[in-house]
Amino acid sequence: MDHSKEFNRYRERMNSRILSAKNLNIKRFFALDTRAYDKGALDAKTKEMLGLVASTVLRCNDCITYHVIRCTQEGITDEEFFEAMNIALIVGGSITIPHIRKAVETLDECRQKRKTRTHKEK
Amino acid sequence: MDHSKEFNRYRERMNSRILSAKNLNIKRFFALDTRAYDKGALDAKTKEMLGLVASTVLRCNDCITYHVIRCTQEGITDEEFFEAMNIALIVGGSITIPHIRKAVETLDECRQKRKTRTHKEK
Amino acid sequence: MDHSKEFNRYRERMNSRILSAKNLNIKRFFALDTRAYDKGALDAKTKEMLGLVASTVLRCNDCITYHVIRCTQEGITDEEFFEAMNIALIVGGSITIPHIRKAVETLDECRQKRKTRTHKEK
Amino acid sequence: MDHSKEFNRYRERMNSRILSAKNLNIKRFFALDTRAYDKGALDAKTKEMLGLVASTVLRCNDCITYHVIRCTQEGITDEEFFEAMNIALIVGGSITIPHIRKAVETLDECRQKRKTRTHKEK
Amino acid sequence: MDHSKEFNRYRERMNSRILSAKNLNIKRFFALDTRAYDKGALDAKTKEMLGLVASTVLRCNDCITYHVIRCTQEGITDEEFFEAMNIALIVGGSITIPHIRKAVETLDECRQKRKTRTHKEK
Amino acid sequence: MDHSKEFNRYRERMNSRILSAKNLNIKRFFALDTRAYDKGALDAKTKEMLGLVASTVLRCNDCITYHVIRCTQEGITDEEFFEAMNIALIVGGSITIPHIRKAVETLDECRQKRKTRTHKEK
Repeated sequence: MDHSKEFNRYRERMNSRILSAKNLNIKRFFALDTRAYDKGALDAKTKEMLGLVASTVLRCNDCITYHVIRCTQEGITDEEFFEAMNIALIVGGSITIPHIRKAVETLDECRQKRKTRTHKEK
Repeated sequence: MDHSKEFNRYRERMNSRILSAKNLNIKRFFALDTRAYDKGALDAKTKEMLGLVASTVLRCNDCITYHVIRCTQEGITDEEFFEAMNIALIVGGSITIPHIRKAVETLDECRQKRKTRTHKEK
Repeated sequence: MDHSKEFNRYRERMNSRILSAKNLNIKRFFALDTRAYDKGALDAKTKEMLGLVASTVLRCNDCITYHVIRCTQEGITDEEFFEAMNIALIVGGSITIPHIRKAVETLDECRQKRKTRTHKEK
Repeated sequence: MDHSKEFNRYRERMNSRILSAKNLNIKRFFALDTRAYDKGALDAKTKEMLGLVASTVLRCNDCITYHVIRCTQEGITDEEFFEAMNIALIVGGSITIPHIRKAVETLDECRQKRKTRTHKEK
Repeated sequence: MDHSKEFNRYRERMNSRILSAKNLNIKRFFALDTRAYDKGALDAKTKEMLGLVASTVLRCNDCITYHVIRCTQEGITDEEFFEAMNIALIVGGSITIPHIRKAVETLDECRQKRKTRTHKEK
Repeated sequence: MDHSKEFNRYRERMNSRILSAKNLNIKRFFALDTRAYDKGALDAKTKEMLGLVASTVLRCNDCITYHVIRCTQEGITDEEFFEAMNIALIVGGSITIPHIRKAVETLDECRQKRKTRTHKEK
């Protein structure tokens, strides 16, 4: 079972459904949401870490899954990941621990998929 | 009136009072809190930005004031600051706007103080 | 699989269990909770929308499911629903998006059930 | 002392400062925020009540002040106001009470100002 | 300046105003709120500590002030107070620290007032 | 299906994974988290109730499950449990109800397991 794949499929299906609703303001919000993480004065990895820590202290598993996937795509190291998680943990308290478990689970899944892919390519 | 100076004085006085209470676990938490922002795999500026965005989405003005001061000490540019604030705004919504006002007010105060200081030194 | 039916069954079973516990204050709270949405100066649809938006910014899926079902019973149109969701999205930020997905999924389920029912009645 | 006037002045000054920062995404967010409350399928009074209840359960005094002022401009009655506040109270709990106090204080101030104005016009 | 006295006066004035509004459900909620802390299977001190920790992790200064005053009336010791605060700190994270400062300030004020009163009685 | 057993297994597996990550600060936080609930001036049952109410108003199901299990191990009575839940309900509002359902479900499961165990021992 590939949790992040399943998550992405549901996410894309429901986003299409929402954007089909002809509410222009919601469409614009979704566009702004994407643009917020584009490289600017801050690089994409830093922005995704900001999104990840914000999602962790607000305790939103779906948002965490999304930003962990993006962080690994932008080349976050394990050390960087856990330092960011530690800030979320200190700021947000033990109440964030179940969400940190989820974040680490997704990180491991992403690392595993990359390995499998690299192995296949050889 | 120097808001960040007054804030720092109250903060230090009350922290001393709390640490005098002989609750060892609280003392240890305060030590961990400080250490979380030490340079590691991530540099101090990035960590302070993570703390700032976390504080903004959780809407804690005192925490915001603290991290804005620290961010300016670590050399954050205005462009970086507003990109970080934009992520907090997108993730946390319009409910964060009063806190972003506060953050910008503190930023301006820090920039102003630095100018005055530089001017005096000449 | 009928998610809102399953949800209602669990909800009713556990509410009965809680109310059987002989804690008079909890019982009174549950009664007040029901009464809050009764038609008064504001009509039932407006009140259910207030409950829906409050539940969305506080990000409680079960509460969202309940109020979406009630909103459709009170005749909310799709346009009204998405305008209410847009206010939740602007106030609460992108962190509400996973919950808006859930709300839209429940809305579609309610619309579908009504259609099936109307079809059968012919 | 006119609290809502002072609030509006600070709000406008800081919003100008933020919008002067040349962060296009923040500017767009502010525009979307305004547009969310425009009359559409739902009228302006209903939308302002949705914003008020969302702000109350999220416990943001500045947002509450803003929406109470707007609600009175759109002609909310006292009965409607307290029914909306009761939903915020039931959904969000006693933790919202200090914010409901603030909301009622602002309501009374708005009613008082209108009376004074009407009296002067005679 | 006596902060807890001033707080109590504002609190009582606004509560009277709210209860005068003839919204029966709000009145009943206020009654339930009072009753929740009455001695039952749990004694009043334990209940006030539960209210204090809940208020601290939800970060509501007015609620914290109220429950600290009540805790000292029920005879909480300093050691008990700081152990309860430590649980709030661990569960809720560093974001609660500004509120713990407030709680400790109120505790010291309550202790000081009692001393002054005892001294005068001699 | 034994929910609390399954929960404990996942919890322990992921905690081991997190602690294997060589982030010393996270390790220290986990140690502080455990120590916070050790008997001190307040007994273990009171501390677990504080943790339970904090987790309920912050609406974290995994934390609730953990503290309900611990509360039953420390001998909480049903009456005490529901009085604590009522405080969470009053402070946190109807938004906590889905989490109170979860807490009661876990309580019943713990009581049932104890009965089965006692029966087997005879």
